[in-house]
Amino acid sequence: AERTWIPVPPDSPFPLENLPFGIGCRAAGGPTVAWVAFGDHAVDLDRLDADGVFASTGLRRGTFATGRLNDHLAAGPEVWSAVRARLLDVLTDPRSADALADAVSRRDELQMALPVETLDYVDFYSSLHHATNLGRLFRPDADPLLPNWRHLPVGYHGRAGTLVPDGTDIVRPGGLRLVDGAPLFGPSRRLDIELEVGTVVGVGTAPGHPPVAADASDHLYGMCLVNDWSARDIQAFEYQPLGPFLGKSFATSVSPWLVSFEALAPHRVEAPVQDPPVAGYLRTDEPWAIDLHLEVLVESAVMREAGIAPHVVSRTGFADMYWTPAQQFAHVVANGATTRTGDLFASGTVSGPEPGTEGSFIELARAGERPIDLPDGTTRTFLDDGDRVILRGWAGGDGTPRIGLGEVSGTIVPSPGG
Amino acid sequence: AERTWIPVPPDSPFPLENLPFGIGCRAAGGPTVAWVAFGDHAVDLDRLDADGVFASTGLRRGTFATGRLNDHLAAGPEVWSAVRARLLDVLTDPRSADALADAVSRRDELQMALPVETLDYVDFYSSLHHATNLGRLFRPDADPLLPNWRHLPVGYHGRAGTLVPDGTDIVRPGGLRLVDGAPLFGPSRRLDIELEVGTVVGVGTAPGHPPVAADASDHLYGMCLVNDWSARDIQAFEYQPLGPFLGKSFATSVSPWLVSFEALAPHRVEAPVQDPPVAGYLRTDEPWAIDLHLEVLVESAVMREAGIAPHVVSRTGFADMYWTPAQQFAHVVANGATTRTGDLFASGTVSGPEPGTEGSFIELARAGERPIDLPDGTTRTFLDDGDRVILRGWAGGDGTPRIGLGEVSGTIVPSPGG
Repeated sequence: AERTWIPVPPDSPFPLENLPFGIGCRAAGGPTVAWVAFGDHAVDLDRLDADGVFASTGLRRGTFATGRLNDHLAAGPEVWSAVRARLLDVLTDPRSADALADAVSRRDELQMALPVETLDYVDFYSSLHHATNLGRLFRPDADPLLPNWRHLPVGYHGRAGTLVPDGTDIVRPGGLRLVDGAPLFGPSRRLDIELEVGTVVGVGTAPGHPPVAADASDHLYGMCLVNDWSARDIQAFEYQPLGPFLGKSFATSVSPWLVSFEALAPHRVEAPVQDPPVAGYLRTDEPWAIDLHLEVLVESAVMREAGIAPHVVSRTGFADMYWTPAQQFAHVVANGATTRTGDLFASGTVSGPEPGTEGSFIELARAGERPIDLPDGTTRTFLDDGDRVILRGWAGGDGTPRIGLGEVSGTIVPSPGG
Repeated sequence: AERTWIPVPPDSPFPLENLPFGIGCRAAGGPTVAWVAFGDHAVDLDRLDADGVFASTGLRRGTFATGRLNDHLAAGPEVWSAVRARLLDVLTDPRSADALADAVSRRDELQMALPVETLDYVDFYSSLHHATNLGRLFRPDADPLLPNWRHLPVGYHGRAGTLVPDGTDIVRPGGLRLVDGAPLFGPSRRLDIELEVGTVVGVGTAPGHPPVAADASDHLYGMCLVNDWSARDIQAFEYQPLGPFLGKSFATSVSPWLVSFEALAPHRVEAPVQDPPVAGYLRTDEPWAIDLHLEVLVESAVMREAGIAPHVVSRTGFADMYWTPAQQFAHVVANGATTRTGDLFASGTVSGPEPGTEGSFIELARAGERPIDLPDGTTRTFLDDGDRVILRGWAGGDGTPRIGLGEVSGTIVPSPGG
C-alpha cells in the first residue's frame, strides 16, 4: 500500500482505494461541506478545492460547498475520475501534511447529513431469495414468483421526502392494521427493516431515446446502504392493488458515505445467469453485480444500557442479486422517463438462501414463528421501541483493500399516539 | 358583479371570484414570474409586488419572481387571503388601470410552466365508480372493491420528475407487454388517459404528531387538473405485486392555473356518506367534496387538419368522489410522513356511474369492446399517435361565477423506438 500522511488503520473500511464522499459539518461548528472519508478521518473537499487541488479536473469551483453532492455527481465520469486521481496524489504527498492539516477532521467529530438531494426514489425487489421468501409467506399456495419477476426488475416509487440520514430516530408509525379481522388505527405492531443497497444517479437523462443498461456507466455514480423501514401490518392491509405506501413512507435511512463505482470496480462480478433471457434494453456485456458483504446488527435498549455490543442477526451477500444496478437504471428510463442527478434506486431487500442470511425480520423470524434471540435474553419477531438497527456493508477485505459502505443506523422511538 | 378595469367575458373560467395563479413568461420574451389569470388576460404578480401592492400582506418581496409558486404557498393561509384581498382591490380600482397597464398580458401570449415544484407526488384511487369499473375489468369473478378500499384512500407514489406542463407532447412509451402471451418490448398499444384533479400542499408538515383531516385547511392550498397518462399494457404486465410503475411514470400533465380552496369555497359540498364509518384521522366536520364539472375532449390529427373542433368523449363530476382532498392529505401524513410545499395529490381517475361519464378510455371503451366514435369517422379504444387530449374542469356557471380550473392538454407523438 502507498504511504499516506493520514494514518489508515488496518482493515479500515475507508482506505486510499475507497475515498467515499459525504456531506457534513464539524459537530463543534462550521459550514456544511463535502468530505472524503479516509481511515478514521475525513478531509474537507471544499477546503482542498479552495487550495486549487482540483484546478485541473474540470470541477467547478464551489462544487463541494453546496451542502449536497449533486453538483459533483452531475459533472460526469471524467470529472469524477480526475478528482479521485487528485485525491490519490494529495493524500500520498507528504508535502500536503502541513499545508492541509486544518482540512482534516476525525470522522467521529463530524455530523453527517444525507449525501445527496434525491428528487425521485425507486425501491426495487431484485433479490430472488427475498421475493421467493415473501411470496411463500404471503401466497403459500401459489408460485412464489409472479410471472413478471424474471422478465423485469419489479419496483415502485417511494417517498423521496422521508429519506433520512444515518442516526435519525425512527418514530414507530401509526396506521390502519387488521386487529381481530377489523381495521383499527394504531401504532404498527410489526415494525421491520429492509437491508438494501442504493445506487445513486450521477448524470441524469434527458427526454428522447432512452439509454439502455449498457450505457449505465455514463450515468451511475455510486452506492450507499439503505434501510427501508417497513410496517408489515400497515403494508399488508393497504398494499392491494397499488403497492406499498404508508407501510414504507414514514422513513428510509440512507448511509452517509457514497462509494463510487470507480472504487467498487475491482469487486464487479458476473450476476447470476438470467433465465429466460432478458430484453435487449436490460442486457450488459460488462459484469454489473457487486460482490458486497452485508450485515444486520441489533442493539436493544437493555443491551445499550448494559454495554452489550450490537448483535449480528443476519450476514448476507449482494453478489447474487438477480437484477443489477445497470438493469434497474435501464428499466426506470425504458419508458422515456427522465432521471435526475441524485435519484436513488434501492435494490430491494437483500436476502440469501440460507437461514440467517435474510435481510428482514419477517424473513429471519418466519413471520413471527421463529423468534430471534438477542444477547439480553429477549427475543424479537419484529422491532421493539428502543431497538437500534445497524446495517453494514463492504467489498474486499481478507488481504485486499476493504471498500466499505460504512454503516447506517436508526433507533425506534415510540409512536406519538402511544 | 363588481366593475373591473380589465374586461372579463361572460362565463369566463377566470372571473374576479377565481384569481388562479400560474407561472409563465411572455412568449415574446421576459422573465418567468407568477401571474394571476383574469378573463382573457393575466396580470404579472411580481410587477404588482414591485409596486407595493402586497406591502401590507406579510408577503416576502420577490415571492412571485422565483419561477414557482412554492414560496407563496409556503407563506400560509393568512398571507394567501391577504394577497387575494389586495388583488380584488386592485382589479376593481379604476385608478390601477393606467398604473398597472404594463403588468397585463393576454393569456394566450403567455408561455406557461408547471405552477409548482413538486417534490413528492401521490396518485390516489378515490372514485368509487372508477375502482368498481376497473375491478370488474381486471377481476371479473371477484368483488370489484378490495377489502381495504372503503377504509382508507388507496394511493401510491408517482414519479415527481416526469410531471410536465400543459401542452407538453407525450411520447408513446416503450415497455414490456404481453404479446401472444409472451413479454415483448415495444411501444405501448394501449395508451390511455386518466382524468384527475390534483390537490397541492401549501404549508408542509413537520415530523411529530401528524395532522388529521380536520386540520387540512391549514395546509392545502388549491387544485389543478392532472392527466395521469397510462400505458395499460405495460401496467398490466408489471403491476403485481408492488403497483403501477413504468405504465405511469413516463409523463403526467399538470394544468397551469392553480385555483385556491378559498376561490372554491362556495362549491364545497358534502361528500357521499362513508359506510363503514372511517377512522378518526379521516373525519371532517366541514364539507370537503368539491362540486366540479369535468370534461375529456379528443382531437385527432385528421380533425386538427380538417379544422374539426375537439370532441367531448366524457362529461363527469367530482362532487361524489368517495375520498376527499382532506382525507387524502390526512392519510399521507398518518404514519408520520412529512409533506412539503408543492406536494401533489392526484385524486385518481374521476368516473361517474353512467356510460360517457368515465375518466379513462379503458372504461369508456370497455377495454376495447365498445370503441368510441370520433367526428372524423374513426374510432378509438386507446390513443393513436397524433391524438390530442384536453381535460377541462370548473365549478359554478349557470348564473353563478364560474371558477375554472382551465385546461390541460397533450398530444401523443410516436415512440422513438418506432
